[in-house]
Amino acid sequence: MDTKKDLTRLRKKLDELLHLRSALALASWDQEVNMPPAAAESRAAMTAYLSGEYHTKLLALDENGLLTGLDAARRNHTLKPRGAAMIRELMRDYTLAAKLPMAFVIEFAELTSRAQHIWAEARSKNDFPLFRPWLEKIVKLSRIKAELLGGNRPYDTLIDTFEPGMTSEELSITFVELRDALVTLVGKIRANKTKIPKGPTGTSPIADQKSFLDFINLKMGFDAQAGRLDPSTHPFTNGAHPTDVRITTRYNEKDLWTSVGSDIHELGHALYEQGLPVKETGTPLAEAVSLGVHESQSRFWENMVGRNKNTWEFLYPEMRKRFPAFRKYGLDDWYRHLHAVTPTLIRTESDEVTYNLHIIIRFEIEKELIEGSIGIKDLPEIWNQKVRDYLGIRVPDDAHGVLQDVHWSGGMIGYFPTYTLGNLYSAQLHEAIRKDMPDFDKKLAKGNFLPIRDWLREKIHRHGRFYSAPELMRRATGSSLSVAPFAAYLTEKYSDLYDL
Amino acid sequence: MDTKKDLTRLRKKLDELLHLRSALALASWDQEVNMPPAAAESRAAMTAYLSGEYHTKLLALDENGLLTGLDAARRNHTLKPRGAAMIRELMRDYTLAAKLPMAFVIEFAELTSRAQHIWAEARSKNDFPLFRPWLEKIVKLSRIKAELLGGNRPYDTLIDTFEPGMTSEELSITFVELRDALVTLVGKIRANKTKIPKGPTGTSPIADQKSFLDFINLKMGFDAQAGRLDPSTHPFTNGAHPTDVRITTRYNEKDLWTSVGSDIHELGHALYEQGLPVKETGTPLAEAVSLGVHESQSRFWENMVGRNKNTWEFLYPEMRKRFPAFRKYGLDDWYRHLHAVTPTLIRTESDEVTYNLHIIIRFEIEKELIEGSIGIKDLPEIWNQKVRDYLGIRVPDDAHGVLQDVHWSGGMIGYFPTYTLGNLYSAQLHEAIRKDMPDFDKKLAKGNFLPIRDWLREKIHRHGRFYSAPELMRRATGSSLSVAPFAAYLTEKYSDLYDL
Repeated sequence: MDTKKDLTRLRKKLDELLHLRSALALASWDQEVNMPPAAAESRAAMTAYLSGEYHTKLLALDENGLLTGLDAARRNHTLKPRGAAMIRELMRDYTLAAKLPMAFVIEFAELTSRAQHIWAEARSKNDFPLFRPWLEKIVKLSRIKAELLGGNRPYDTLIDTFEPGMTSEELSITFVELRDALVTLVGKIRANKTKIPKGPTGTSPIADQKSFLDFINLKMGFDAQAGRLDPSTHPFTNGAHPTDVRITTRYNEKDLWTSVGSDIHELGHALYEQGLPVKETGTPLAEAVSLGVHESQSRFWENMVGRNKNTWEFLYPEMRKRFPAFRKYGLDDWYRHLHAVTPTLIRTESDEVTYNLHIIIRFEIEKELIEGSIGIKDLPEIWNQKVRDYLGIRVPDDAHGVLQDVHWSGGMIGYFPTYTLGNLYSAQLHEAIRKDMPDFDKKLAKGNFLPIRDWLREKIHRHGRFYSAPELMRRATGSSLSVAPFAAYLTEKYSDLYDL
Repeated sequence: MDTKKDLTRLRKKLDELLHLRSALALASWDQEVNMPPAAAESRAAMTAYLSGEYHTKLLALDENGLLTGLDAARRNHTLKPRGAAMIRELMRDYTLAAKLPMAFVIEFAELTSRAQHIWAEARSKNDFPLFRPWLEKIVKLSRIKAELLGGNRPYDTLIDTFEPGMTSEELSITFVELRDALVTLVGKIRANKTKIPKGPTGTSPIADQKSFLDFINLKMGFDAQAGRLDPSTHPFTNGAHPTDVRITTRYNEKDLWTSVGSDIHELGHALYEQGLPVKETGTPLAEAVSLGVHESQSRFWENMVGRNKNTWEFLYPEMRKRFPAFRKYGLDDWYRHLHAVTPTLIRTESDEVTYNLHIIIRFEIEKELIEGSIGIKDLPEIWNQKVRDYLGIRVPDDAHGVLQDVHWSGGMIGYFPTYTLGNLYSAQLHEAIRKDMPDFDKKLAKGNFLPIRDWLREKIHRHGRFYSAPELMRRATGSSLSVAPFAAYLTEKYSDLYDL
């Protein structure tokens, strides 16, 4: 066996997989941003075909024992560290893919594709019974999926597909601690009489907002030569290749924070993608390590930078110059406006404090769903009770309750927890960067964001999947997953804002 | 052999080819409209990979003799007419592809890809000697290509790849007749003292132009649910699928005709693509029959509709409402402005009358290049002499002469004649539609364009490649390729405009 030749051969196969991923990423971006409506069906067929080709080619990595041979070399310690990490991660991807028979992959894809349409209809009609049999099938197939993939607990297996190495036990312990802290904080805030100002009145034209976002993105280190910003209904980041990272935002002429907040959030994702080691593109060493870590980047920029008052010391004069609506509206009001805490029914409209309670509700429910300890018919009632317990509000109907999110209909059980992981990680990174960079706030106030991007690049981005997510975070922050930094960050900030 | 089963099996393979073509079309559109500059290299690699896959899968149509078996059934007359036409055309595509060894395809692609960069540099530096060795290689490889493809005369073989069934002999006879008619007409116009008015002064904002184009496209029958309009440097039409046909135009704030003329031209291409039989998408029955026929559609709309005074009877009030620049500028001046005839050095900037002289120059030269009767070192001199003879102007440098077009550097020898074929065909269609639709002008004046689109749909679009291009034109117009209708159209129109 000639390891060097085999690595070259493998790299060629990885390039082909990369090309298919790039084509799929472009098709997906285009679908959200540009695609004419009549093309929906032909696009779905094209995407399904390329996905099938991708699955086949992924399995073909081990043609003639190529990948397993290299994995044996890795276990014999004959590979250099980067090569070894690459093979380790490829084996993970390959093994997961190989465990799912093609017939199952197709059945799952078809079911979830149809279920998403049913879910959309059920949500718009506020008709949970319509969605119920579909959710039953999805839960059933998800259990089968977990069984096929193996592992001790089905829900852990599902979580692991989004957040490698994470377990429901670790999440449960963490989330209980977080939930208690949040419920207390929300209670205090709600009991308090402090009034948070509304945003300014007046209209900010979308073209001017776009130009302001371009200014922000440039300052924060987005490489516009290797990416773009477009409008879409649901903001997202699409990294077809480190040289082609596209973000989207949504605009509201009456509310500038809608576009700015979404933009800075997606920018965080984009900086991660643009910061991956471009020379290793196509290999796991140039891929994001987990959804939780990805979300830590978006949340860090959105909250720790985008909601930091110092950032607005820098951005506010610029905003005033561009938007007449802000000429008679003060920086202090704006800052306080960005921190209004109001329990809402809808997760995606919730604030920095209550957001994670929405996630915890979903985590607790989907865990029991998969374990079979609750029945699907009881879901609405369980949901509504938890919203009352944790957020203190009453759910008027299922469209504003259990039917609000797309994830379950898309077969993504185990995905929700990564949002909260991202928030916790972002606060840990925030604590760590302040230690390394005592003038963090001063940098923000001067609009000197690049050293912050570069710190994240150094600590997170450039590593790809070389380390596991927990190891990467431990190296970056000096500690493992922890609630304390996030709880401290919120408590300090909101005690001040609300005079608690 | 079970013909029905084989046809089903073939159709499945065609669907896969279609998906690859759609992915490639999207990548190509995106490259011109959206792609960030840094992505050029990764996009090129992705495109090359998918093109290779396409070539391989095209050859795999005959796996286990599937295609040749069906072709035998076709020759035994056991297929229905549409099936037979489909197999006939697939055999054509397959046979051409199979004649070119993969190594040659790659060599040709790499050479022309590099040569296009050299050409761009040579044009910008006005340095023909820099491009000369590359053109020599391209001519040499094009001769080899013609030899591999077979046929009696190499240039005919190359023309046939763009315009199936067309020969250089038929083109020569046609073009000599056309050239003489045009040289005479241009001479008369130049000798004439009639002054053609300039366009209006003033600026027309791009956003308003876009909205005017949307209005025009809607009126002329473009299905915006199955397509879009975007800006790009060089206008083009991209038909990834009949349900996803995208056109582009270019804008000039000082000259509305730049965007309107390009838009209506591309609209003509788009209506063809949108008019192909959608149920047969993926088969040759839902593909355009030739480049010449495609160009006949764009030229028909651009010239026979877009430069018809009646069209402006309808559009002018709308234009005045939208663009202040036109409030003190008259319809008659505008109409005459659209018909200014001025021999220019650059083909793409030339008018309706002189345009084809540019093509004839290229045709005469590339024919002799391939046949070897002129040397590449003599090209600039030969070019300049022909421009003097046919257009009556002096070429100051090669950038404005032999170096102006991308086609040869891209290996597209034999492509140019299809532009003029399109013009001739468009006039033949114009003559035919006026016979079928005596109130053609009245329809234009009322903005009632849909019956015109539908006539073209009936006569041309819906047939795809069922008939050959000459047969299709004969059925639509009652005659074979002819100079007379185009010459008559120009003579009548310009005699009137220039008082000849």
